[in-house]
Amino acid sequence: MARIHDLLRTELPIIQAPMAGVQGHALAVAVSNAGGLGSLPAALLALDALRQELTALKAQTARPFNVNFFCHEAPAPDAERDAAWRAALAPYHAEFGVDAAVLTVATGRAPFSEALADLVAEFEPPVVSFHFGLPSAALMQRVRVSRAVILSSATTLDEALWLEANGADAVIAQGLEAGGHRGMFLGDDISTQVGTFALLPQLVRALRVPVIAAGGIADAQGVAAAMALGAAGVQVGTAYLLCPEATTSAVHRAALQSAAAGCTALTNLFTGRPARGIVNRAMRELGPMSRAAPAFPLATGLMAPLRAKAEALGRGDFSPLWAGQNTSGCRAVPAAQLTRELAAGLPAR
Amino acid sequence: MARIHDLLRTELPIIQAPMAGVQGHALAVAVSNAGGLGSLPAALLALDALRQELTALKAQTARPFNVNFFCHEAPAPDAERDAAWRAALAPYHAEFGVDAAVLTVATGRAPFSEALADLVAEFEPPVVSFHFGLPSAALMQRVRVSRAVILSSATTLDEALWLEANGADAVIAQGLEAGGHRGMFLGDDISTQVGTFALLPQLVRALRVPVIAAGGIADAQGVAAAMALGAAGVQVGTAYLLCPEATTSAVHRAALQSAAAGCTALTNLFTGRPARGIVNRAMRELGPMSRAAPAFPLATGLMAPLRAKAEALGRGDFSPLWAGQNTSGCRAVPAAQLTRELAAGLPAR
Repeated sequence: MARIHDLLRTELPIIQAPMAGVQGHALAVAVSNAGGLGSLPAALLALDALRQELTALKAQTARPFNVNFFCHEAPAPDAERDAAWRAALAPYHAEFGVDAAVLTVATGRAPFSEALADLVAEFEPPVVSFHFGLPSAALMQRVRVSRAVILSSATTLDEALWLEANGADAVIAQGLEAGGHRGMFLGDDISTQVGTFALLPQLVRALRVPVIAAGGIADAQGVAAAMALGAAGVQVGTAYLLCPEATTSAVHRAALQSAAAGCTALTNLFTGRPARGIVNRAMRELGPMSRAAPAFPLATGLMAPLRAKAEALGRGDFSPLWAGQNTSGCRAVPAAQLTRELAAGLPAR
Repeated sequence: MARIHDLLRTELPIIQAPMAGVQGHALAVAVSNAGGLGSLPAALLALDALRQELTALKAQTARPFNVNFFCHEAPAPDAERDAAWRAALAPYHAEFGVDAAVLTVATGRAPFSEALADLVAEFEPPVVSFHFGLPSAALMQRVRVSRAVILSSATTLDEALWLEANGADAVIAQGLEAGGHRGMFLGDDISTQVGTFALLPQLVRALRVPVIAAGGIADAQGVAAAMALGAAGVQVGTAYLLCPEATTSAVHRAALQSAAAGCTALTNLFTGRPARGIVNRAMRELGPMSRAAPAFPLATGLMAPLRAKAEALGRGDFSPLWAGQNTSGCRAVPAAQLTRELAAGLPAR
């Protein structure tokens, strides 16, 4: 507890997981002001939008916060794979009257870059977390110079050791229960992904840096269990999805509160990388994993108009309904209240 | 704790998981005499052998013990699928000089039956556990009349509710970290299997009967974490595999102590049903999941001679190296010692 406190400088070792697409600064502000570590996901924001979010965030909290970046490698063009994906979605484009000929593969998610490092230098977020490994040594050095504490997620012991060796100050053990994108970066075989109960103690035993537990933690009991397994802190995402400060869409909120929330799977249909979401029509009919899906993040372009058409009809059939396997903590309560309730599971100091 | 004690009548709410193929009565005796619930797996034993095991077990402990049965439906013949499987394994049969023409599909694992119910009536095991659901109402009634407490495993909330409704006195929440066969019986889609951290609290919340945690529990900290999540008790398998009382093969013991143990996957190659084992050559080259594998338990027949040939060379390339995702608790210590060490994670009474 002392080491993670020295790193994060928060009252509570509770990190609100950055969730691109379903939150902006408001959720991060609420969690940081409640004593946890609020997180701002940068992955889907253009530079200007990110600047606005950071400005708002810093204006509304004096407490530590986290900014999260993706650091994937931009994919090489692959016309054959694009054609296969186009063919796979053609029946749906026809069904919804989408003119697919005018659509292109998406490039919406840009990896961490010199321009984003400029923003880090300007705004000096106390914590920066990465997903899909770590950026280049040169970019890491720029973040280091900004004095940010650096976090990243591991889905295997090998990834955790790699992160520690390459400069992560703490490692997030992302058990396969977790919602959203798997942080996997040393492999792409989802058959070997590990549950929190098995991943967390392995990392705690093997690493010198603190290990933060993620995946399946939904309430105070979950926090207590993670701490019993040796976690220095926890990262919780799914439980925050119904908070009023989140921007979770109406169809996403409805799905989280329906019986469907009990059935999630890893799917690459929405972005090209495996991510956990509530099973919907697209996942049932095309996957949930599909060899036709193009490399991350190029799957989004041809899927987006289907998502828009279906959501306009009130349906999440083609939406990424990101959620972890434990949605029992999802309630429409203020994020500060949820943070304090989670904190009840921390050991007494 | 009180309810599970009333059910199991053991000193400790710690169940040694039944592990067909790697243990007989000796392991069960050691655990039961140490205050846990030792388990005898019946699935691979002919009636006579089971009778001998039960006789030895009852002679060596006066404490409660468990007998475990599979209760799958025997599969219908499927010549086309058999041919596909034969073709898939043909290169390996050629490599090892196996005359596949004389091999037949295996029928080694018989489901629970009247004859097995006769043995239950005769030996009156205090606890009977089932895998793959529960047997017919008529067979359930026979077990009930023997006064055995009845357990079964659930891998989803739906399965847990089904087991409770159909007469299970307690339900084992089998998180996907667990080694060996998934107990899944209401579906066969492994993409929706749930980690212990997410499965256990859902079952605890939804069921009236006690919930026993399984999957990824390897030491006292794991026991403490499971209890924090609301478990009434725990079932531990993998950690017992290196105990001298287990009959784990040499190649299996070597694999558990190698770096390979860090990489397990669900595979249907060895029996036809998904089961978790250490990734080996067969799993890498044919799966780990294969559509060619015949229905449970018919995959074993054509694989068995490859296993024997490879094991004779000291290799586990074609062996079911069952193990959970957390092998950190595997040590060559007496099962009684391991049981007591696990018990240190139980809350003080």
